[in-house]
Order: sequence, then structure tokens, then C-alpha cells
Amino acid sequence: MKVTKHIDKIIDMEEKKIFNVLYGQSGGPTSVINASAYGLIKEAKKHPDKIGKIYAMHFGLEGLLKEDIIDVTSFKDSKLKDLLTTPGAAFGSNRYKLNDEITDKDKFDKIIEILRKYNIHYFFYNGGNDSMETILKVSRYAKKVNYELYAIGIPKTIDNDLMEFDHTPGYPSAAKYIANSVSSIYFDDASYLKGRVNIVEIMGRDTGWLTASSKLAELNGAKVDLIYVPEVSFDTETFLNKVKEIYEKKGHCLVCLSEGIRDKNDKLIGVNQEMKDVFGHTQLGGVSVYLSTLVHQKLGFKTRYIELSLLQRANSLIPSEVDIKEAIKVGSFALKSAIYGKTQKVVTINRTYKNDSYKAKYSLTSISKVANKVRYLPLNYLNETQDHIKDSFIQYGLPLIEGKKKKGLFKTFKLN
Amino acid sequence: MKVTKHIDKIIDMEEKKIFNVLYGQSGGPTSVINASAYGLIKEAKKHPDKIGKIYAMHFGLEGLLKEDIIDVTSFKDSKLKDLLTTPGAAFGSNRYKLNDEITDKDKFDKIIEILRKYNIHYFFYNGGNDSMETILKVSRYAKKVNYELYAIGIPKTIDNDLMEFDHTPGYPSAAKYIANSVSSIYFDDASYLKGRVNIVEIMGRDTGWLTASSKLAELNGAKVDLIYVPEVSFDTETFLNKVKEIYEKKGHCLVCLSEGIRDKNDKLIGVNQEMKDVFGHTQLGGVSVYLSTLVHQKLGFKTRYIELSLLQRANSLIPSEVDIKEAIKVGSFALKSAIYGKTQKVVTINRTYKNDSYKAKYSLTSISKVANKVRYLPLNYLNETQDHIKDSFIQYGLPLIEGKKKKGLFKTFKLN
Repeated sequence: MKVTKHIDKIIDMEEKKIFNVLYGQSGGPTSVINASAYGLIKEAKKHPDKIGKIYAMHFGLEGLLKEDIIDVTSFKDSKLKDLLTTPGAAFGSNRYKLNDEITDKDKFDKIIEILRKYNIHYFFYNGGNDSMETILKVSRYAKKVNYELYAIGIPKTIDNDLMEFDHTPGYPSAAKYIANSVSSIYFDDASYLKGRVNIVEIMGRDTGWLTASSKLAELNGAKVDLIYVPEVSFDTETFLNKVKEIYEKKGHCLVCLSEGIRDKNDKLIGVNQEMKDVFGHTQLGGVSVYLSTLVHQKLGFKTRYIELSLLQRANSLIPSEVDIKEAIKVGSFALKSAIYGKTQKVVTINRTYKNDSYKAKYSLTSISKVANKVRYLPLNYLNETQDHIKDSFIQYGLPLIEGKKKKGLFKTFKLN
Repeated sequence: MKVTKHIDKIIDMEEKKIFNVLYGQSGGPTSVINASAYGLIKEAKKHPDKIGKIYAMHFGLEGLLKEDIIDVTSFKDSKLKDLLTTPGAAFGSNRYKLNDEITDKDKFDKIIEILRKYNIHYFFYNGGNDSMETILKVSRYAKKVNYELYAIGIPKTIDNDLMEFDHTPGYPSAAKYIANSVSSIYFDDASYLKGRVNIVEIMGRDTGWLTASSKLAELNGAKVDLIYVPEVSFDTETFLNKVKEIYEKKGHCLVCLSEGIRDKNDKLIGVNQEMKDVFGHTQLGGVSVYLSTLVHQKLGFKTRYIELSLLQRANSLIPSEVDIKEAIKVGSFALKSAIYGKTQKVVTINRTYKNDSYKAKYSLTSISKVANKVRYLPLNYLNETQDHIKDSFIQYGLPLIEGKKKKGLFKTFKLN
């Protein structure tokens, strides 16, 4: 009886083309991934003529394969609003990777079976370049087996490394956290006539976007002495000489560097190459420990390493207003795109200026242009000696962290 | 000519009992030490009948001994206001320690000479228990040589370890930073079905006040599994067993501990343990690096160490409103106390409740009751197994981080 009723209902909905929605989170969390979920769910509720139920994967694809999905349709607005301030991935994320259609045929079939069972024809996956590959695979398989699926990618990555983007949701909040933290570290060290060599380790395995945002600390009166990014090779001897010169002159030296800096042989600086994660990525962390030890041993200076660590991506302390707003928008834009019949697309953010003030422009691009590609920090943001970031980066970064109510950086007192 | 005029002016001021003020910053900075400077300077300007010029030591006693003092009398309000948001010690701090009056007689004489030259009879030093000792020494020497000096201590320390206090300025902002950071780390790890053993290292060489504030993260729905403070001895075997049990059950384990935890022989954990990197170099790194390595080696779990480091004391990101307000108040209270003829006193903060809501009560106590003494975290805040903090601590800590406009902790979305 119950089953028949359930089937009747699905048939009824299919005739009216009322489809259900499935949303999933994937990869490393950001401060605003949940804001995109909020944008998507709120938008979905505005289309009862097209959308029935709204489901969320519990721990992404890993949950979906176990049919662990959550019906969020009846979640109240007051509850959903808390998504805007919650770090992490509120519905659970995962790092699950699908192999090709032959190797993982059973998994692809399982996914389609579950989508069919729940009348899901709108499919959204919120992640970075790895996750975009997943959407592409699922939607290609759906097409192959003639399952109607509108699959849209919702971007998210603090790394800011997606092609076709001006910047990605998550980056502005991470950049704001980094800029303010670096500025705080500067002012703390400036408390003493003679300070330390402070080495700040910033996330970024392959790209220097996050580390470049330390440049924004200078808007506060902070002085960052050296900035190193993975896009150019790092020479330890040159580094030690620079640190020596700066510290002997000023009694202070503030260095910001990416976890992923490498030497001219492409070998990570100071990292135990034997530690690998499940994807075979070398486990990072440790370059600042290594270099501060080296500075102390070779030059005898007082040093300190500071790893900004997880709080860069879980910045619920001072998220960027711009970032939250844009993350909501990419969520709602994705939903609208799907019900307009788009598929295998990802929502992009690009910038325009209106009366000289920054404005985000949203559009769609093919997922294949984004999946598994990496956008590096343009080398023209680097100074001649490739150990600092040029002022031109400020024009890029500042609008992303500045809000209307709360400014991008805290105000500082200048003695002179 | 000029000199005579200068002397005439001083004589004139002395007859009217118009004295000048000297303010200095000392020890490790806090988020709100500059707010106390603000409170003192603003208050001093309200008493032109008693106060002439307002000087600040440039880098504390170290600057004073070189006659490096800054006249801040004409600093505009708009400039002074920036003191409220600036981390570090804006006038420069120092860790200079005076020896006894015999050994350092020349230094004591030099100080009195400079005070006399600048007609300074109101002396304020903004610091922790070490700095209070300095005030006591200077004011005792002044008395001995018959120099009229009203010397008042302005409290400041994130460690929260001053006797005679409910809490010290700087602690609430540090506690707020720690609680929110720990909560963020929890929610980040909860993004995955299986997370890591995250070991968060919190400041506190001798006392556990800062680490205890990680308990406040639980108000946000975070779950801190283990909390270790320096007040009780740490047993590594017991720790490993607990971590094993928790992680095997939950797939997550969040540990918060003080940098100063010690074993039963009072030996610091993980310090001086030979840590070598791949190149055979001894690594810098504290207890969290050591313990996370140990957990990984002995139990095979994925671990991460997170040192909250400098940002605890340089928290300009989310300072506590209560803290800023109180720091201003102790500055102004110190000034008023001096002009009322008080000396060798320190401004204390204690708590009272008005209609069930927290209220700070300011008063004076003898510096000798505070100088070089340490207030430990009461053991009755610890649970029976001494590896967690009891709920009763929340009643103590929460009012210190809650503001009217901004709440103490960010709001969080709960799936269930």
C-alpha cells in the first residue's frame, strides 16, 4: 500500500516535472561553504512549481553511496540562517573520488539508482577542482544511461585556484583572516625594541594566492619583510642572507611563506617526503618549523614559527562580508541555472567595477574548463627578486575583504 | 635664558601642585593594554588643575633609562581612539628588570633624575606580576630619597594569574579568541566522518586559566574531549590510552592543553625531548608537536597540532567588549587614584552581580600583595580525572567574553 502510494506520487510529480534537489559538500571546508548551502536551499524554496524536496548528502558522495541523505525541505529559516556563521561543512564533507565508469560501474549505478528512487534530477556539488571532476563524471554517466540530470557545480576553495574565476568563495574570508593575523603578529613584535624573526606559514600547496594576501597587512601599517610563494623556487641560502641583513638592521623580521614552497629541484622545503595523505599528496606543515630552526642555528637570532593552520579555512571569527554575500549568491545562481535546464556547468565569479567600486559578476562556464585545472598566482604580482608582493595586488585583494559595516582590517594607532 | 624659563615654569607648577604624568607598558602585550593607555590619557586630560603634561615611556623602563619618553599631551582624541583597536604595546614594552637598590643604584638615581627633570610625580606602569615589582622598587626608592611620587600599577596579563583579582585585563579577549578558535577547529574536523586527533596548544606556562577557556567552546555545540592544565601533573601513558579510546569510538578527538604541562617529576612535556627532522636537525616545537608525533607513532592515527601562538595575546580580530571597557576603566581609575594621593597600589577588578548580570567592581590593593605572586586555576574547576574542566567554569568565563553587540561565540547550525 505504502509503496504504491509512494510510486504514484513520483509518477504524478514527473508528469508535472516537479523534481527533487540534491546538494552535497566536498573537499576541505571554507568559512562560507555553508552560506552557499543557505543560498541554494532558500532559492529552491522559491520554486514550488518546479521543486519538491530538497535533500543534502550527509558527508558528500561517501554518504550518498550509503543512501545517507537528509531531507532539509522543512528546515526553518531561523535554523538555516545559522548556516551563515558556522564554519566547517555543516552537512558533512568528504574526499571520496570516483574512478572511471568501468572501474567504478557499480558505484555509478548505485548513484543513479538512488537519484531515481528519490526523484532527484537537480544535482549540486559544492567543492573545488577535484569535486568538479566528480560532477562531470556523474552527469556524463547519467546521460549515458538516459537519466535526466541537471548537474551544476558550486565553487568553493580557500586556495583561489579555479580557472575561469576572478576569485573563489572561501578565499576572501581566508585572506581577511591572514591579513589581520599577520598585521597582529607585526604589531605584537613591534612592542619590543628588539623582536624576533617571525616566520608565518600559510596554506597553499601549489599556489600563492593565500600567502599573497599577507601583503594586505601593510594597509594597516604593518611591514612584511619577505613573502615566498610556491610559484617560484625557494633558495635557502639567499633566504638566510636576506633575513640576516633585515634583522641586523631592524631587530625585527617578518616572513610570510606558503606551506608548499619548493627548491629548484621541485623538492618541498623542510618536509618529510614520506608522509602522504590518502590521495598521495605529501603531508605538509613543517616548513616554518624547519626554517625557524635553521635561522636560529645558522644566524643565532631569536625566532618563532607561526602556522596559521586550520583557522584560515575555518575563519568564523572575522569572515568577509563580501565572501558571505557571494557564497549565498553562487548557491542561488546554481539552483536557478539547473531549473533553467543548464547542466555540466559551474557558477563563476568575475569582477566588474561600477562607479569605481568593486562588483561581482556571476555566470556559468563549462565544468570541463575548471575540473582538475589549477590557476596560479600571476608572476607579475611578484617583485623583481621574487620575495615580495607588489602593491598592485592590493587593488585585487582589498575589495574582497572590505565590508560595508566592518572594515577589512582593524584600525591601528601610529605613534609618529 | 631658555633653561631659566624652563626652571621658572617648573617652580611655578610645583607651587600649584601641577605635576606631570608618566605611563609605561611592560611585559607581554595583550589585546587591550593600549585601551588602558587610552583610559589613563583621557582621564589625565580631564584634570588640568592637577596635571600638566602626559608622558609615555618609549619601550618601558628600557626607554626611560635612556630618557626616551614621548609627550602625548597633544595627541588628538581621534588618534587616541585607535589605541582601542591596536594590538601589541603601542608605546613599546620591555622585559627590563631592576635589581636591588644597591646593585642598581645608578639606575634608580637615573630614574629619579629624569622624573625630577620632567616634573613627573604621577607614575604608572602597565603590566603583570613582574612589572608590579618594578613599581614597588621605584616608589620605595623615591620615598627613600624624599622624591614625592604617586605610583600606581595598572594590571595587564592574558595569563589571568594576578592575586587579588577576579580576572585581569587581557584575559577576556584571549579567552574569547581561544573559545572561538577551538570551536572553529571542532566544526572543521566534524566536516568529515572520520577526522583527526587535533591537539591544540594554548599559552600558559604555570597556570591553566587560558586553557580552561577552551571549555567555553562547548557552548557552541563543540565537544572538547580532553583538557590538560599545568596545575596537575600529566601522564603520557594515560593520555595515549584516553586518546585511543576516544578516537576509536568517535573517529574524532579534540585535545586542548597548556604549553606548560609537566610530568610528575615537574619536567615539561615534550621540551628537550630530542626531535629531529629528516636532515637530523633538532626541531623547535612545543608540547603539541611532540604529543601529536607520539600519537601518530604509537597509535597510528592521523593527527594535527595547532599552536594558537601569538594571536592569543594579539587578538585584534575579536576582542572582548567587556575587556576593552574594563581596560579603559583600570587606566582611568589608576589616574584618579594617583591624584587622590594614593601610591604603591594596583587597581583590581572583582566581580559583583546586579540583577543576575555580571558587573565589574574596581578597587585598590597594595602592590606587595600582587607583585611576584601567582594565582592558580582553582582545582575545583577540574573534573575528577583532572583531564577536563567542569561546567561551573562557564559561569566564571562566559560573562567575560559576552558583549552586548557582539556575542561571545559565533552562532552555529545544528543538523539534528
